Amino acid sequence: MSHVLDQAIAVVRGDDDADDVTVFQATTHPAYANMVGPFGGITVATVVNALMSHPDALGDPLAVTINYLAPIADGDWALHAEIVRTNRTNQHWVFRIVQNDQTVSTGTAVFALHRQTWESIEARPPVVPPADEVASVDFPDFIAWAGNYDMRFVTGGLADGKNDDSTSTMWIRDVPERPLDYPALASMTDSFFPRIFLRHGTYMPAGTITLSTYIHATPEELAAQGTDPVLATARGARFGNGHFDADGQIWSGDGEDAVLLATTHQVMYFKDPS
Amino acid sequence: MSHVLDQAIAVVRGDDDADDVTVFQATTHPAYANMVGPFGGITVATVVNALMSHPDALGDPLAVTINYLAPIADGDWALHAEIVRTNRTNQHWVFRIVQNDQTVSTGTAVFALHRQTWESIEARPPVVPPADEVASVDFPDFIAWAGNYDMRFVTGGLADGKNDDSTSTMWIRDVPERPLDYPALASMTDSFFPRIFLRHGTYMPAGTITLSTYIHATPEELAAQGTDPVLATARGARFGNGHFDADGQIWSGDGEDAVLLATTHQVMYFKDPS
Repeated sequence: MSHVLDQAIAVVRGDDDADDVTVFQATTHPAYANMVGPFGGITVATVVNALMSHPDALGDPLAVTINYLAPIADGDWALHAEIVRTNRTNQHWVFRIVQNDQTVSTGTAVFALHRQTWESIEARPPVVPPADEVASVDFPDFIAWAGNYDMRFVTGGLADGKNDDSTSTMWIRDVPERPLDYPALASMTDSFFPRIFLRHGTYMPAGTITLSTYIHATPEELAAQGTDPVLATARGARFGNGHFDADGQIWSGDGEDAVLLATTHQVMYFKDPS
Repeated sequence: MSHVLDQAIAVVRGDDDADDVTVFQATTHPAYANMVGPFGGITVATVVNALMSHPDALGDPLAVTINYLAPIADGDWALHAEIVRTNRTNQHWVFRIVQNDQTVSTGTAVFALHRQTWESIEARPPVVPPADEVASVDFPDFIAWAGNYDMRFVTGGLADGKNDDSTSTMWIRDVPERPLDYPALASMTDSFFPRIFLRHGTYMPAGTITLSTYIHATPEELAAQGTDPVLATARGARFGNGHFDADGQIWSGDGEDAVLLATTHQVMYFKDPS
């Protein structure tokens, strides 16, 4: 039996059409259901998995932007993906997710080769206790997808109540344990609950409108991570007029030799509690 | 004579084609030339200007992602834009920039209505001296576009030489003075020189691959800004393997009542100096 993440991100590739668009067939998985439609992270992970499986893909995923136009209903959906241009060291994709003849997501992706250059990880990870000294959190049943993650909040868990600082920092890994790869990492970049929950200390109507994830990790860094939990942190900058943003980072761990695996940015809508 | 920014972002709208794609005709402006092709900010500003001019546009620009596939050559180019879905309070666009039958940029945009809700500007602006106490910087002639901005670096100007911290913070406004609006603000979100320059204290081959800008400003906040300079700050998180990222914020000013007008994120490529 394959891992539940692999079941959820599985795609079947169709033929390219006359316009060089490849169609991949996917199906929602009940284990990654969210309050309205599937967990956005699993949708991104499925897109990344599909594009990586294309024989013409160049290198590894570097950036993915996805826009959520409408909820995906339970059942089958189709990813329409097109390589618009392949340069010497990077490659540009556009894609749409179509269900029942409606486009429910749009997006773009950049793949790239890793070239050896000067390097510096300028950002620093949060200072935290080890994962095994932090308690794992249970989410309510109506957030099904969270059951596939072990999340240990160092700060900014929902149990902390209302907070003037929207920062959440957590250790997170797949349940059951699974070696980290690009789809799993992409999924985790959308695993932060909406920052507005933390500011109000309660669940509220909210959802992602657009998400841009930048993947810094090399294949070697992912292999070195194995099944160890990653250290994830996110914070909002401005809330108001029905929207807010959030920026996040995913680190290989804490300490001096920690590697910044991914950075992520999104805009969400929200409604005031009635 | 109209302002040079308005000349540069001017578009002529064609008819919608059978697939509901609207084509806008634009032309590069020599005043916004960069080292290779036009300044990316002016391209984003032109896209924002075009989409805003569409009679079916809903509300104001909230988010724009643009991918730079290839340089735009001097001359005419065409924006192919499509409204994929209009929801009750937001609207999703996809677009391509086409020149000589080649797609040179792809992207997506979200427009939205501003709804009155709970609000909080959680981020804080940098602590800086007033703009008139900071010296304006001249850029070399081969960076033509910079001549259309008054930039006053509080920290992280290129004249500072090599720096372990890639943060640049500057006061910036259009030259000549021009009241701030969405296109002008969008342009400024790409006005930070590549962070790798600051780490090495020198110009290097580098260019934006993908840019996502989130516009928080309301029309009233833009009107209140008028021609006052905005406070812009940006920093990179990780450099290496031929790429780096940068995150930026644009503030109405400094101090307690400063408003966060926009946040911006990008991935650039770079080559080591030979």
